[in-house]
Amino acid sequence: MGLDRLIEAIDQKQNPTVAGLDPRLDYLPDFLKQRAYTEYGQTLEGAAEAVWEYNRCLIDALCDVVPAVKPQAAYYELYGWAGMRTLAKTIRYAKDKGLFVITDGKRNDIGTTMEAYAAAHLGETDVGGERFAAFDGDALTVNGYLGSDGILPLLDICKQRDRGIFVLCKTSNPGSGELQDKRIDGTPVYAAMGDRCERWGEDTRGAFGYSAVGAVVGATYPEQLRELRERLPHTVFLVPGYGAQGGGAKDVAGAFDQNGRGAVVNSSRAILCAWKKEECDPADFAGAARREALRMKADLTAVL
Amino acid sequence: MGLDRLIEAIDQKQNPTVAGLDPRLDYLPDFLKQRAYTEYGQTLEGAAEAVWEYNRCLIDALCDVVPAVKPQAAYYELYGWAGMRTLAKTIRYAKDKGLFVITDGKRNDIGTTMEAYAAAHLGETDVGGERFAAFDGDALTVNGYLGSDGILPLLDICKQRDRGIFVLCKTSNPGSGELQDKRIDGTPVYAAMGDRCERWGEDTRGAFGYSAVGAVVGATYPEQLRELRERLPHTVFLVPGYGAQGGGAKDVAGAFDQNGRGAVVNSSRAILCAWKKEECDPADFAGAARREALRMKADLTAVL
Repeated sequence: MGLDRLIEAIDQKQNPTVAGLDPRLDYLPDFLKQRAYTEYGQTLEGAAEAVWEYNRCLIDALCDVVPAVKPQAAYYELYGWAGMRTLAKTIRYAKDKGLFVITDGKRNDIGTTMEAYAAAHLGETDVGGERFAAFDGDALTVNGYLGSDGILPLLDICKQRDRGIFVLCKTSNPGSGELQDKRIDGTPVYAAMGDRCERWGEDTRGAFGYSAVGAVVGATYPEQLRELRERLPHTVFLVPGYGAQGGGAKDVAGAFDQNGRGAVVNSSRAILCAWKKEECDPADFAGAARREALRMKADLTAVL
Repeated sequence: MGLDRLIEAIDQKQNPTVAGLDPRLDYLPDFLKQRAYTEYGQTLEGAAEAVWEYNRCLIDALCDVVPAVKPQAAYYELYGWAGMRTLAKTIRYAKDKGLFVITDGKRNDIGTTMEAYAAAHLGETDVGGERFAAFDGDALTVNGYLGSDGILPLLDICKQRDRGIFVLCKTSNPGSGELQDKRIDGTPVYAAMGDRCERWGEDTRGAFGYSAVGAVVGATYPEQLRELRERLPHTVFLVPGYGAQGGGAKDVAGAFDQNGRGAVVNSSRAILCAWKKEECDPADFAGAARREALRMKADLTAVL
């Protein structure tokens, strides 16, 4: 219950990192792409196969270092249905390797439509009585602009199938303040959204006191991270913006509670492109990703 | 430029309706499902094939009555990658039949990730210099909670490829007021989001004075529709909530300008399930959808 499985995985690996799987084609070494294009064509299908091979190698190299991965749906939709097949295969493979999978889809809708997203990403699809898991992540990022009608349809599946969600509160981008920092009756929108996360999650709390309803709070806003950690004692934070976007280990320190729990920090580009930064043999791209993940682990655990 | 192609299609068909393609399996007649399950298995793939057949028949029956269709992405993700293949085929088929296609994905992210969504849904994907359109809608619904960083990456594609977006402002659901009606410095959030649509669209205005940046405003809030029509003279409204959600023709009248332009009204369930309501031969499901679309056209044009 709650996001216990994520917290346990973090405890076990002693590493509060989630590796973002945002496979832009220019992150992939050429040899991988050429191999896939030769076999499947220089097409969306070929690109999707290259991404699948890339992800598989990364997961193999990272699965004993990080507790979780976060595929970003946009980089799979980019390759059409073949990309979505790679997304489903990636999620399945990562789970088989013991990783907790957060599908970063920022999905949002209402009522039965939101139920469809919930079933697609966290639940099962009923086909005339037969049930199939379409994407089957452990957690899904969602956007709460539409109100409770967009969140409540997810909670049943979270309870029934031990899944979680992360609601966007204070995002890591420069323009996040345009709406999120504005005050409503004295409370910033991001904090009001955070308060809702506490309420939505109220009856889904697990062994560590954290609910199944997490919040996205950017590493690039360390003050708000600290403020929200205090304000939302039952809400796990998914923290983007570390590394490439400018957030450092000290910036994310405030995301954690006094037990060093309650947050998971995302890194995508720095891990995925470590082979470019190292200027190592491109064939060792997964090894470079692993070395960067170990460096990040040391960086984060030093401040906890 | 702007949403001219949509407005022209509405003018030509004399019908400001968009037919929502939200293919829940229980909306499909049994014979369609059985046929697909027999050929492709009672699986996600079989379901996706049944949905494709359903959509194809509906598009054939509706394409000379309505100017636009709006596939809801959730009901395609529900069938995994096979569902996404049906989404791509449906969009292609509808465009070939002269329909304007609004992909209802409510996508949202920032920077290069939002560029990936833009390329996937409105643009092209570059695979080593070869370019492929993954989903290729004419317009995409998006969520502006993340600020300008989430919207600006779409505008280049809108300009280059004559596409449009619809930003969620005041959604049709009962809980939409939880955030959207709250006031920031005296202005409700939905109106502030609408003001942003005007600014984001400023240099994309077309022949009718409307920009490429539209807004989603629910039929269930007729007062706000009227207020926003006044406030946002260059913003086309996509109006959900007519019919099944309780909005009537009088409720949506305020969405239109003095020339009867500036809005398109969605109906999903009433059109898709017309065969159930009529209790006609299920084999005539597409005919029933057409009759309901004609009824809705008469209903809407009577108040314009």
